[in-house]
Amino acid sequence: MVYQDRIAQLREMMTENGWDAVVVSGSDPHSSEYPAPRWQQVKWLSGFTGEAGDLVVTHDHAGLWTDSRYFIQAVEQLEGTGIELHKTRVPGAESIPEWLSERAQVVALDGLCQSVGAVGEFSGSIVDVPDMLDSLWDDRPSIPVSPVTTLDVECFGGTPRPQKIEWLRKWMLLQGVDRVLLTSLDEIAWVLNVRGCDIEYNPLVISYLLVSQDSVKWFVKKDVDYLDPDTEDSFNELVADGVAVEDYDGVFYALKDFSGESSAVRIFVDPSTVNYHIYSHILENYPDEFIIRGVSPVILEKSVKTAEEIGHLRQTYIEDGVAMERFLYWLETEVASGKEVTEWEASEKLTSLRAEIPGYRGNSFENISAYGPGAALPHYSTPQVGSAVIRPYGLYLVDSGGQYLTGTTDITRTVPMGECTYIEKEDYTLVLKGMIDLSMAVFPRGTAGCQLDALARMPLWRARRNFGHGTGHGIGYYLCVHEGPQSIRYQYNPQPLLPGMVTSNEPGIYREGMHGVRHENIVLCREAGTSEFGDWLEFETLTCCHIDTSAVLPELLGPEALGWLNRYNSRVYETLAPLLPDEVALWLRQKTEIKCSGA
Amino acid sequence: MVYQDRIAQLREMMTENGWDAVVVSGSDPHSSEYPAPRWQQVKWLSGFTGEAGDLVVTHDHAGLWTDSRYFIQAVEQLEGTGIELHKTRVPGAESIPEWLSERAQVVALDGLCQSVGAVGEFSGSIVDVPDMLDSLWDDRPSIPVSPVTTLDVECFGGTPRPQKIEWLRKWMLLQGVDRVLLTSLDEIAWVLNVRGCDIEYNPLVISYLLVSQDSVKWFVKKDVDYLDPDTEDSFNELVADGVAVEDYDGVFYALKDFSGESSAVRIFVDPSTVNYHIYSHILENYPDEFIIRGVSPVILEKSVKTAEEIGHLRQTYIEDGVAMERFLYWLETEVASGKEVTEWEASEKLTSLRAEIPGYRGNSFENISAYGPGAALPHYSTPQVGSAVIRPYGLYLVDSGGQYLTGTTDITRTVPMGECTYIEKEDYTLVLKGMIDLSMAVFPRGTAGCQLDALARMPLWRARRNFGHGTGHGIGYYLCVHEGPQSIRYQYNPQPLLPGMVTSNEPGIYREGMHGVRHENIVLCREAGTSEFGDWLEFETLTCCHIDTSAVLPELLGPEALGWLNRYNSRVYETLAPLLPDEVALWLRQKTEIKCSGA
Repeated sequence: MVYQDRIAQLREMMTENGWDAVVVSGSDPHSSEYPAPRWQQVKWLSGFTGEAGDLVVTHDHAGLWTDSRYFIQAVEQLEGTGIELHKTRVPGAESIPEWLSERAQVVALDGLCQSVGAVGEFSGSIVDVPDMLDSLWDDRPSIPVSPVTTLDVECFGGTPRPQKIEWLRKWMLLQGVDRVLLTSLDEIAWVLNVRGCDIEYNPLVISYLLVSQDSVKWFVKKDVDYLDPDTEDSFNELVADGVAVEDYDGVFYALKDFSGESSAVRIFVDPSTVNYHIYSHILENYPDEFIIRGVSPVILEKSVKTAEEIGHLRQTYIEDGVAMERFLYWLETEVASGKEVTEWEASEKLTSLRAEIPGYRGNSFENISAYGPGAALPHYSTPQVGSAVIRPYGLYLVDSGGQYLTGTTDITRTVPMGECTYIEKEDYTLVLKGMIDLSMAVFPRGTAGCQLDALARMPLWRARRNFGHGTGHGIGYYLCVHEGPQSIRYQYNPQPLLPGMVTSNEPGIYREGMHGVRHENIVLCREAGTSEFGDWLEFETLTCCHIDTSAVLPELLGPEALGWLNRYNSRVYETLAPLLPDEVALWLRQKTEIKCSGA
Repeated sequence: MVYQDRIAQLREMMTENGWDAVVVSGSDPHSSEYPAPRWQQVKWLSGFTGEAGDLVVTHDHAGLWTDSRYFIQAVEQLEGTGIELHKTRVPGAESIPEWLSERAQVVALDGLCQSVGAVGEFSGSIVDVPDMLDSLWDDRPSIPVSPVTTLDVECFGGTPRPQKIEWLRKWMLLQGVDRVLLTSLDEIAWVLNVRGCDIEYNPLVISYLLVSQDSVKWFVKKDVDYLDPDTEDSFNELVADGVAVEDYDGVFYALKDFSGESSAVRIFVDPSTVNYHIYSHILENYPDEFIIRGVSPVILEKSVKTAEEIGHLRQTYIEDGVAMERFLYWLETEVASGKEVTEWEASEKLTSLRAEIPGYRGNSFENISAYGPGAALPHYSTPQVGSAVIRPYGLYLVDSGGQYLTGTTDITRTVPMGECTYIEKEDYTLVLKGMIDLSMAVFPRGTAGCQLDALARMPLWRARRNFGHGTGHGIGYYLCVHEGPQSIRYQYNPQPLLPGMVTSNEPGIYREGMHGVRHENIVLCREAGTSEFGDWLEFETLTCCHIDTSAVLPELLGPEALGWLNRYNSRVYETLAPLLPDEVALWLRQKTEIKCSGA
């Protein structure tokens, strides 16, 4: 078997070098959520394709560490490889450093793909071998090079590049730092107003950015044989704004180049995102007291959308809603007519409808299209072959989103396909009540998302039900669909919600082997006036797509949430009807009729 | 003026000793909430009687630092003293260490009355002068000596003393410490099952406790001339359980007495409560690596009440409710009959009714009896002379509690005395809705109070209203009415609510010059079953006293909270009616009639 061979080769390398263990991470040099194929090293060595997983190989053991989302998948994919599953985030779970502490003295790893924090936990001596697998992996993909575009902020909102650089330099002055190294790809894309497609779902360019008071150096992989005209235009535009476009690997030299500067150069890095290899390089070249560690200021600045961006987002969510309604109409009609629509076909249909929207640049993550028991897996991956047929009863769940020049969308609708059981209706209603209760919140300036999380959960909690994921994550602007620093979570996160932040509101419930429910709207935090008691904030719902009332138990939802639901659906109809084909508009009118409080 | 003279004398002392500043705190050596007269040093020097305030004297300035609760009072009481008010907890407020940093090199203070943390913030050099004011304050009260009683845990619940000591010793073994020094009086009272009356409202004995594996030493002030028989019995009982009763000041010798022990004695102290003077003494006598700092384990253990204590609490809250209902009946009848009842008279009446309850040992804090604008001050102190007359309209607020052998109570009722304005009714209803929404909460094991706080505030927040104090504090068992570690607050406090914890639920609203509303019930955290989604907890309301429905706006309260209110009032009537005089029972029946949802 191929994976056993690869691990055997790795063990030979270990013997030659005197390593007791090798740790292989599923990450890339930029802490990306979706690493490019080059960095899918865990997959290459083990066959495991989950989004989160780390591999450990010793001379007599090979193990994959992953969390509950991927237990079933890991068992299936690891069969026959000899690799054992180590469950993380379960009671008594042993972390990789803990497990290794008594089994390995010398641990080798690819420092490019490890975070500083993770490496810090190891007790043995660390051997950093960048691109360790190169010599074994003959056809290892190279670093992706895709066309680079720049954003027309006049047209699509956002702050001009020179202003962003000026803002960053002012921040540097206040912090007393001379250089800032950015390694997170969405931070770099935001600062430079550039986008690419090096990474699936995330419109990013693999690169590093080094900013000082008199230079901005962007280290990016170029195709040595051919520079496409769009990319050339983009590079020229950047150069005109004073950004030097240099080779990707040049960052290492630039970090130790102090020509023209005094010897006391203070550099800022964010240890939560910088990789171990480049961090070690910094430690070698700067005295420790000149290395300033902290959270990158770009993260917070990026999360607060500008007025122009917000204007575009409102419109983008309407256009995204048109695609969603056309999809939901199609789905209901097809299934009702007796056609056998599979989860995969539904997913493809939805993507094709989004693709018709002007400015569409791809999906913002892999569609989750799941019927019945499939929806009980919060991170269900719809198989292309053999996916379930959507039947005219029970619940279908679709979680999807698009990347547009004018923003990033994310929406989940749970669709009653016909007759539903009482427990399906109860779950549907309680989750909806939580989403609505959170939507209606008003809160003082300074309130963090974790202080509001219980609002979304209380209807479920009172019925002794719960869900295991966060209630809300930040969303980028034509950037990553998951971004910080804010969140709405059960876990502590002190970041206050600020006007201009865009966050998801997505409670759910998952019953193994039965069904899953999730209702997700995207909300904008905005000002809600001032009173003698202070300054107030509230949420504006950006998502514009009706919520099916056929599975709602009105007495469980309560009059207030029911009022919200009726008003929301009316607004969706009024907004979308003029933009929809007649038959879809007519159908939507029926779908959004007032749901009275009677049974 | 007497205060000017005293400060002048203090300045002479400063000159003689070469001190630039003296800091005088309002605290005692045990971080008590209500210090005995001996330690009311701020009051003696300035005339200020607020519960929180620190005085700073330099050669050319005298200032009092206090927070917004006492701004008005401070201005009045400091008039003519030459002492200036420094406001704390306001934007741009300068703390004492900040203010002193550029004004004083040598700062003198009474280290007995300063916390370790507070002293750590000073930048100048510190001179610790225990009992500094002794030489100026001729008739300074001595350390109080009041009768000591022991608790009959067989009768009144709680864990026997030997078991508590055994539990503490097991904890010490696990932590690897040889000695534990306890300085908080309620922790000591809890461990030893002793009570006293050295401090107003808190049934405590001023003392220190030093526990090792083979000794328990209790350092307590004794009356040298006369040992009353009860105290003698108590001491004998303690001695029989292996507790050595030693002199209060003996703690300093005992801390440095290592006879019979190896040289490596590790001592545990809680820096959040230990005073600076005794802490300095420990630093002198133990190598730093042998001083183990942390949060005292007694705090958490004490907060979780035993099954027997809970049984007694339920009964105690019923008896306390009888006194409250008799009081509310009396108040309404007197005022309706045209009698001029003052806030003070009402307060005295309530105390006299509580005093009739068997096991009553005093009030648990100073009654707040406030009509109209007085209630807009959350910590209103009812004056004996000149307090307001309670009129047959508007809102009267009474916040009070009792100390009983079988528990400590705390309750606030806001009473509509007749016609109320619309805004009074709105405030009354919104605060009540918050209290009820929190009462109905169900939550997973592991949830902290700060995660539930928004439930109590959301009805107010949605109307752009708020209140500036916490929603809930822990309550002792025949101990302090305010205790930790749990709380229900806007501010972060990671302590989960545990089954057996007793906490207040008291949202409010305060409108200066108009009125104040606060509804306070005491709730017990208890188990609420297990489901496939985990273990669940909920609140049981211990407080048993009706909530007046005449000022409730039903449409604002909503059907669910209205249902809770009706069920609560019915339960109060059914529980209390058999225990009340006929005319009060009849009145209560009318008061607790179902409030329908119609206008």
